[in-house]
Amino acid sequence: MAKANKKPLILVTNDDDITAPGIRNLVEAVKDLGTVVVVAPDKPQSGMGHAITIGSPLRMNRMHLFGDIEAWQTSGTPVDCVKLAVDKILHRKPDLCLSGINHGANHSINVIYSGTMSAAMEASIEGIPSIGFSLLDYNYEADFTGARQAVRTIVSAILQQKTLDKHFLLNVNIPSVPAKEIKGIRVCKQAYAKYVEDFDERIDPQGKKYFWLTGEFVNFDKSRDADVWALQHNYVSVVPVQFDLTNYKLKELLDKKQLFK
Amino acid sequence: MAKANKKPLILVTNDDDITAPGIRNLVEAVKDLGTVVVVAPDKPQSGMGHAITIGSPLRMNRMHLFGDIEAWQTSGTPVDCVKLAVDKILHRKPDLCLSGINHGANHSINVIYSGTMSAAMEASIEGIPSIGFSLLDYNYEADFTGARQAVRTIVSAILQQKTLDKHFLLNVNIPSVPAKEIKGIRVCKQAYAKYVEDFDERIDPQGKKYFWLTGEFVNFDKSRDADVWALQHNYVSVVPVQFDLTNYKLKELLDKKQLFK
Repeated sequence: MAKANKKPLILVTNDDDITAPGIRNLVEAVKDLGTVVVVAPDKPQSGMGHAITIGSPLRMNRMHLFGDIEAWQTSGTPVDCVKLAVDKILHRKPDLCLSGINHGANHSINVIYSGTMSAAMEASIEGIPSIGFSLLDYNYEADFTGARQAVRTIVSAILQQKTLDKHFLLNVNIPSVPAKEIKGIRVCKQAYAKYVEDFDERIDPQGKKYFWLTGEFVNFDKSRDADVWALQHNYVSVVPVQFDLTNYKLKELLDKKQLFK
Repeated sequence: MAKANKKPLILVTNDDDITAPGIRNLVEAVKDLGTVVVVAPDKPQSGMGHAITIGSPLRMNRMHLFGDIEAWQTSGTPVDCVKLAVDKILHRKPDLCLSGINHGANHSINVIYSGTMSAAMEASIEGIPSIGFSLLDYNYEADFTGARQAVRTIVSAILQQKTLDKHFLLNVNIPSVPAKEIKGIRVCKQAYAKYVEDFDERIDPQGKKYFWLTGEFVNFDKSRDADVWALQHNYVSVVPVQFDLTNYKLKELLDKKQLFK
């Protein structure tokens, strides 16, 4: 992928906001592998999914948070950040987009809700190979040692590829264990899992009801091929991701049945 | 799908807000096909993707907008609406979830950004067969005659199915032409298309830059099998959708290459 005598241009973004420890650790892990430019949200955007900002305008400000590395914060969502970076900051497609390191899991069904993965997917849609990284630890004081090693191993391997599909997209999750306990890196499929909702119902000082979204994560996919299995067994999980959501099996079935004729 | 002597329970939601003409037309089209309950956002949520509300609490209010039909507005995203409906309003899974009729296209890559389709996908993840409907007309004064006919044909056909996968999910788009010009309903794949961004840069009264997200839709997939082709030729497009985003081809390739060993 890297051209001789030319450092690859690496766009770094996230969804936890530009000041989060996760993005600092991501930059530290890759800054000598290419020319890094950071474009990230100015506030937390977790759970934003693939949201874009269409009803209000966007702001950008140059930041000096990463030493010599060019960095911008925007008022937009993670997806907006990728769009702004390409169109208004880099004025070209970067060679690689990295998103994260997210504070918290984005394995299994979480890929759908994740701002981290939506930023990476947006880059992939635009034809920029892209990887999202998440550490299974919500704590801002989390130990990123194992995560940084995984990032470095994966990004180095990808940058050495001579050809890479322009829509190349990976969802990488890192178990929350000391670095020496990580057993390796496994290529996986997305486990089928979901949240069983249990809204926390409360009464405000005016006597009106309000609800907090809470829920229990339930994994229905125990296969050794799935990302949840890999993480439970202290492997880094790597799920190749696509943005063609067509259910081809159901398409074939509906074509056969001629339901709507 | 419908059990003898028992009307199916149909959850209706959208992303344009509970007062939008699209959801009124959807309710009108299906209200005699089952027991309809409406749970929809109290403000426009277009482009919200699969966003959920985790940093602030949610509100719900009973509304009287659809005659005898039970209706609630919530302060949440389309995905929040589905979660609240199942857990706090219906206290069980509905037999079918319908989302829309969206004001504007959700074909091709738009499925990723769409609040309408994210609500439908959330239902599908929860094990509720679900369909999202969109009319290719942003105008609130749009003619929904053709859209209502398509909704009725498709929902009737689905309700007559004795067995239906619990994750059954369709993305239906309706061309913006007079009803009599609609040629039929075609089962399609999601076209590969994207937006080429072109942010509109302006200066505010304080002399600071701000940006409006704009962009040109570009379709790269001219195949007759794709939803964009169907819509351009005045067909209703029906794309079966899945939430397993695993790119199995790339998974196989990475497994073979042993890149990260």
